[in-house]
Amino acid sequence: MKILVVNGPNINLTGKREPGVYGSLTLEQINEKIKLRAAQSGAECEFFQSNCEGALIDRLQQAIGNTDGIILNAGAYTHYSYALRDCIASLDIPVVEVHMSNIAAREEFRHTSVISPVCKGQIMGFGYSSYLLALEYLTMEQ
Amino acid sequence: MKILVVNGPNINLTGKREPGVYGSLTLEQINEKIKLRAAQSGAECEFFQSNCEGALIDRLQQAIGNTDGIILNAGAYTHYSYALRDCIASLDIPVVEVHMSNIAAREEFRHTSVISPVCKGQIMGFGYSSYLLALEYLTMEQ
Amino acid sequence: MKILVVNGPNINLTGKREPGVYGSLTLEQINEKIKLRAAQSGAECEFFQSNCEGALIDRLQQAIGNTDGIILNAGAYTHYSYALRDCIASLDIPVVEVHMSNIAAREEFRHTSVISPVCKGQIMGFGYSSYLLALEYLTMEQ
Amino acid sequence: MKILVVNGPNINLTGKREPGVYGSLTLEQINEKIKLRAAQSGAECEFFQSNCEGALIDRLQQAIGNTDGIILNAGAYTHYSYALRDCIASLDIPVVEVHMSNIAAREEFRHTSVISPVCKGQIMGFGYSSYLLALEYLTMEQ
Amino acid sequence: MKILVVNGPNINLTGKREPGVYGSLTLEQINEKIKLRAAQSGAECEFFQSNCEGALIDRLQQAIGNTDGIILNAGAYTHYSYALRDCIASLDIPVVEVHMSNIAAREEFRHTSVISPVCKGQIMGFGYSSYLLALEYLTMEQ
Amino acid sequence: MKILVVNGPNINLTGKREPGVYGSLTLEQINEKIKLRAAQSGAECEFFQSNCEGALIDRLQQAIGNTDGIILNAGAYTHYSYALRDCIASLDIPVVEVHMSNIAAREEFRHTSVISPVCKGQIMGFGYSSYLLALEYLTMEQ
Amino acid sequence: MKILVVNGPNINLTGKREPGVYGSLTLEQINEKIKLRAAQSGAECEFFQSNCEGALIDRLQQAIGNTDGIILNAGAYTHYSYALRDCIASLDIPVVEVHMSNIAAREEFRHTSVISPVCKGQIMGFGYSSYLLALEYLTMEQ
Amino acid sequence: MKILVVNGPNINLTGKREPGVYGSLTLEQINEKIKLRAAQSGAECEFFQSNCEGALIDRLQQAIGNTDGIILNAGAYTHYSYALRDCIASLDIPVVEVHMSNIAAREEFRHTSVISPVCKGQIMGFGYSSYLLALEYLTMEQ
Amino acid sequence: MKILVVNGPNINLTGKREPGVYGSLTLEQINEKIKLRAAQSGAECEFFQSNCEGALIDRLQQAIGNTDGIILNAGAYTHYSYALRDCIASLDIPVVEVHMSNIAAREEFRHTSVISPVCKGQIMGFGYSSYLLALEYLTMEQ
Amino acid sequence: MKILVVNGPNINLTGKREPGVYGSLTLEQINEKIKLRAAQSGAECEFFQSNCEGALIDRLQQAIGNTDGIILNAGAYTHYSYALRDCIASLDIPVVEVHMSNIAAREEFRHTSVISPVCKGQIMGFGYSSYLLALEYLTMEQ
Amino acid sequence: MKILVVNGPNINLTGKREPGVYGSLTLEQINEKIKLRAAQSGAECEFFQSNCEGALIDRLQQAIGNTDGIILNAGAYTHYSYALRDCIASLDIPVVEVHMSNIAAREEFRHTSVISPVCKGQIMGFGYSSYLLALEYLTMEQ
Amino acid sequence: MKILVVNGPNINLTGKREPGVYGSLTLEQINEKIKLRAAQSGAECEFFQSNCEGALIDRLQQAIGNTDGIILNAGAYTHYSYALRDCIASLDIPVVEVHMSNIAAREEFRHTSVISPVCKGQIMGFGYSSYLLALEYLTMEQ
Repeated sequence: MKILVVNGPNINLTGKREPGVYGSLTLEQINEKIKLRAAQSGAECEFFQSNCEGALIDRLQQAIGNTDGIILNAGAYTHYSYALRDCIASLDIPVVEVHMSNIAAREEFRHTSVISPVCKGQIMGFGYSSYLLALEYLTMEQ
Repeated sequence: MKILVVNGPNINLTGKREPGVYGSLTLEQINEKIKLRAAQSGAECEFFQSNCEGALIDRLQQAIGNTDGIILNAGAYTHYSYALRDCIASLDIPVVEVHMSNIAAREEFRHTSVISPVCKGQIMGFGYSSYLLALEYLTMEQ
Repeated sequence: MKILVVNGPNINLTGKREPGVYGSLTLEQINEKIKLRAAQSGAECEFFQSNCEGALIDRLQQAIGNTDGIILNAGAYTHYSYALRDCIASLDIPVVEVHMSNIAAREEFRHTSVISPVCKGQIMGFGYSSYLLALEYLTMEQ
Repeated sequence: MKILVVNGPNINLTGKREPGVYGSLTLEQINEKIKLRAAQSGAECEFFQSNCEGALIDRLQQAIGNTDGIILNAGAYTHYSYALRDCIASLDIPVVEVHMSNIAAREEFRHTSVISPVCKGQIMGFGYSSYLLALEYLTMEQ
Repeated sequence: MKILVVNGPNINLTGKREPGVYGSLTLEQINEKIKLRAAQSGAECEFFQSNCEGALIDRLQQAIGNTDGIILNAGAYTHYSYALRDCIASLDIPVVEVHMSNIAAREEFRHTSVISPVCKGQIMGFGYSSYLLALEYLTMEQ
Repeated sequence: MKILVVNGPNINLTGKREPGVYGSLTLEQINEKIKLRAAQSGAECEFFQSNCEGALIDRLQQAIGNTDGIILNAGAYTHYSYALRDCIASLDIPVVEVHMSNIAAREEFRHTSVISPVCKGQIMGFGYSSYLLALEYLTMEQ
Repeated sequence: MKILVVNGPNINLTGKREPGVYGSLTLEQINEKIKLRAAQSGAECEFFQSNCEGALIDRLQQAIGNTDGIILNAGAYTHYSYALRDCIASLDIPVVEVHMSNIAAREEFRHTSVISPVCKGQIMGFGYSSYLLALEYLTMEQ
Repeated sequence: MKILVVNGPNINLTGKREPGVYGSLTLEQINEKIKLRAAQSGAECEFFQSNCEGALIDRLQQAIGNTDGIILNAGAYTHYSYALRDCIASLDIPVVEVHMSNIAAREEFRHTSVISPVCKGQIMGFGYSSYLLALEYLTMEQ
Repeated sequence: MKILVVNGPNINLTGKREPGVYGSLTLEQINEKIKLRAAQSGAECEFFQSNCEGALIDRLQQAIGNTDGIILNAGAYTHYSYALRDCIASLDIPVVEVHMSNIAAREEFRHTSVISPVCKGQIMGFGYSSYLLALEYLTMEQ
Repeated sequence: MKILVVNGPNINLTGKREPGVYGSLTLEQINEKIKLRAAQSGAECEFFQSNCEGALIDRLQQAIGNTDGIILNAGAYTHYSYALRDCIASLDIPVVEVHMSNIAAREEFRHTSVISPVCKGQIMGFGYSSYLLALEYLTMEQ
Repeated sequence: MKILVVNGPNINLTGKREPGVYGSLTLEQINEKIKLRAAQSGAECEFFQSNCEGALIDRLQQAIGNTDGIILNAGAYTHYSYALRDCIASLDIPVVEVHMSNIAAREEFRHTSVISPVCKGQIMGFGYSSYLLALEYLTMEQ
Repeated sequence: MKILVVNGPNINLTGKREPGVYGSLTLEQINEKIKLRAAQSGAECEFFQSNCEGALIDRLQQAIGNTDGIILNAGAYTHYSYALRDCIASLDIPVVEVHMSNIAAREEFRHTSVISPVCKGQIMGFGYSSYLLALEYLTMEQ
């Protein structure tokens, strides 16, 4: 089973900025934890991060035909990238939307996710565990 | 570890109505699955369902002092019960909001959750697995 | 043929409050008129009134499998009870929404009915005759 | 007793277009049914249909002094014709607004009726029976 | 000097309906008063009333090249007829918008005039005197 | 003189939750203070609290004919219970709306009270003294 | 007959600023024209201009009992001064709202007049003639 | 192949009003150009223009069964005529919506077309060429 | 203890205008009642009224350092004077907002108070007793 | 004559995703059709596709001084890329906005095009023929 | 070169209230700093502060013909004083809008400035340095 | 002291497009002026421009730890790039937002800056001097 983990803008700064909001682990450390848990389920993970909307779309398109599930934290693009939404809608792969913080408890603009309607589901508010729960879902027997 | 699973209005009909949206398991069958998984983590589950806003609040208040985590599917109250929200905000117990369907992909009125901002986090869109993932989170070492 | 007539909050005060808006017959007197007319069509009526949203939902759920049509005056819950709406949507029984007053001619908040989209149809503005017309519809040959 | 039945734009196509929404009877066939039922109550019906807002207003104004009740299906003018509304408001004849489909369950723009506040009441969602119920009301002893 | 006085839907009922709002003079009597006052200024008046949006536009278009000023009470079309607005904008004749009632003190929907921005100016609230003041303006030396 | 003091959802937790917002007295202690002050004015107080919208309406309806004034803290129902509003509107007893916190200084959803328009008046922001001031008003000579 | 002409903020600059919008006559010259026309009707005019909302209210209050009609160009206060509105509503003197420019054809914020609903009527768009028409109305036999 | 070209309100003034917006050709001259181009594709064109909403609907309904494609410039009715929309939706003929000007670059109210969702497509902003492109589409092999 | 009572625009007309809304006592008579009650609590009152926003702010600023509590009826400024709000926010003195009428039961624009969030609390709807209750609060032992 | 055809995000998947919406031709096949038709008019086409907003802007800027017309399908950027809009506005080359689907008949967010106001015109709803019609326009004699 | 520095409501309290927001310098100390810097550029400054909207307008009008630049901190009037806006628009003097705090980072109502569109530009967020930068601009060679 | 000057989409065209809005200096010439002024304060400037949102974020992130101040003209991204906003919020470097034109005086969509709340302050409307004033601020002694 192959899982793709995609992170959007500024998530590369995780653990370096606003630890009160995002926790103190770096993205690399979080990825390690995901990889470990994936191994326990016999799944293989690939990781991608970019600050560029277009690069994120390019990477998602490349998953067609070779990936069984996608974990996507689109960062701020969550709130306005209809291009990302169109991309997700055109994949035949289940995409789980994740957020480390509880976006409903933050600024108004974070209350809307334009990608949720085309994702399989959403997990938010559990820090880095949001990724682990998404992985858990994708590796469940279905 | 004690977990309380609370279900709101009309969820007692699950498995009997609109299987395309909510799946074909009944609430009792879902509860069995939750109980089973809880046992694996050494957690104990209690279950409560009511169609009455006030009864849901009463039950949540009774959890004070004897419960380690709450899994809450508030059904349609999710979208307008500020009374439920106030109740959740006054508990010192982590509450995980769950939905079986992807509420962002359904009618406009389901796109707003008035309880999200005071819950720990939200898991939605994974059918009955939403409950299992919530349980997974609450029983993780933290 | 079995018809259930359900009345929501404060309708038990009909005939006692604001006769200019709701007429001067009490709910009991209206029910008598409905019963009489039903008898003429060989239909049998059951009546239920509650001020409690949850109790209304409980009663509607109990109609499953034993009722041919429902006449529902949801009172003020008409305007915000998505829980009631979900309940109606999950029944396989035609529900006719009625209002004694013309709700479009009253306060702004009464102009929206959140239950209309899942009811068979709506009859409003004809005083207690709204119930009789609903009954007429349900007992028509179809 | 004299009843005027007025139908607005495109209702002359009923039975010819979108039978799933409006049923398969033509307007002429519906009018026959109305006439029949009216005869049973000793009422006399006149029928008018036009696609033109002005012609509808002209006809309604001509009813002054010679008509006991009006059944009005204003079609799409329901949603924006304040001119029609003003006309209805200036008549001293009870006007019953009818719709064959459940307009609350269709496109957003159909959810608002600008004429409801000045009509006696509204009946919608019962196919051609909406007309019959309106007739029933107008011929009730009051 | 030639003045055209155009009245829209339902204004033919003036003096017959809602005298509290529109006064007790009929449209014919008002026209007489306008004619009289026009004569004093050496102006000649023509009068037109229709309930039909298209007929009003037709009549306004015919004024091109033979009219020095237009007094327009568009009735309810004031609030939504962009077709009328386009027509006024394409004339090279000053159009004075008039209303007998104070439309700002009535229902919400009457607070917006879609034709005001393309008229010369607006006079409202003075009963039939609104027409006389419009005439006064058009016959002033300028 | 008989006064009814009604408290809505979660107010039974007062003094136990968020003391920064609601003060540190429990509801029982507040009721004692009200009773004491009432006694000084020769008034008698009855107290009722419920988390259930329907139960609150039931209790208010029972006050008809045996109560001289009502002090109502509807908690979160303040912001959406049109059923409660209808109930208050149908009583012939002066109802004083009270809030311990300054609801205008809190979350957006608390800025609207759907019951204010049908209450006698509103007192908010003075902690438990809001109840005492309401009592003061009801026991004033008028 | 005594007429008070009140002008609000920045109208003292008329004729000095933006002649394309307001014409090239100064306020003094306009007042002269008003005075002249008033004399023809045997009316007497008093004039007041201030940039201060409070001073305008003070002056209007002083008109109680000694003035037969008021012509008010409230300038920008037209669009937000509810204090001015309350003042007008409390006078027993007909107030005619005037504007030299067509405020419906200018910036969005000028499209709303908060004082219109409590004035007798409104005249706008005719340059300084707006004042003369208002005077004409107030001196008409009524 | 038979094509119907329908033009709405005020388009009969094209070439006579606002040439900066609509060009300097008259409607007759535009129709000539359309006819010419149609001839080249072996198509036959019929033309209809009216200022009346109802007449436009009447004409469109008459196209049923005898027309292969419709080119419709609904003028200002584009922005509010839901009656026209219903008419188009009930035809089984492809309707191409055209506008000579770029309506997205003009006043706010022109930015919404209520007929677009039920037309085949929209062509706007190319002056009279908008008609020619629509014709081109309808006469393409498909 | 020193109390400042500040009244805003048009409140000097109280008792002279709209007695149905504001009661029949003049502002002077109300002040007498306040003074009397204050004396009973050993408090001293100073009174200020102005129609001018700036003068109200000036007076409030002068209270710094010499006043223990402020009772403020800001009249119509309540609804838009952010300048007044800033002033209140910068004082270290508890300000009680009062209204004689129930502003939630009047025109839409009166439903918003821009000063409430920075006042201690609000008392409204009790006629002149609103002032007395505010005084009661400020002179309570705290 | 040189024509640039620019396609935005996810349009590279055309023919591979949602054939019901976009048809079954791939982008390459569509480009072939455009090239062919261009050749017939003696025009030369260049093609560019990118998922990256910035790359699209870069490419459009490079067209300055060497291109006679641009055909732009901005994909989802149509609905929010003000950066693209600014870019188009700064070119001196006619840009024709195209869409294969009828965006007015799809999700709400697709109803607004932020680039339309600065394009020459818009063609939408005709599948790949939208491109051909745009080409037709650009190669017309003007 | 003559510069006028105008400060609006409550700015006279600067340095005395909310030092966290506005800094700890008093308005007099800030003016000293401005004067000093102006002297370095050979410019002369005049200072004016008032809490009264009308007085601010009076002062700005008096600047006509004797002032080369204006620095304006309109305080809370920034957000609603269209009267001030009209005044600025009628001056022929460059006006620089300044704010000490970052108004975009504060309450919602501070996010709109009704005067910005008619000022030369805006400088905000730099504490008292905002004034110095405005001065810098006005004294630059242009 | 090291200053980074970042310019967003289409600003590379400055001096080449719309000189009426942006002036006639090219970006290179503006940068020269900035460099010159910086040298006078002993500061060193680095310059970066990109049309790509992601590249701008990448560059801003690289400034961490080596830059004392940032001058940012985000072009159209100002109005919707929440990704850029998140990036700025995570830097510990003061960012001054600048615009050459007065964005409050242009199209509606330019009135909102989503980055302002997380910048130190904003300077807009002064042409290329906006950059110089930002530099002035950053090099002031603080």
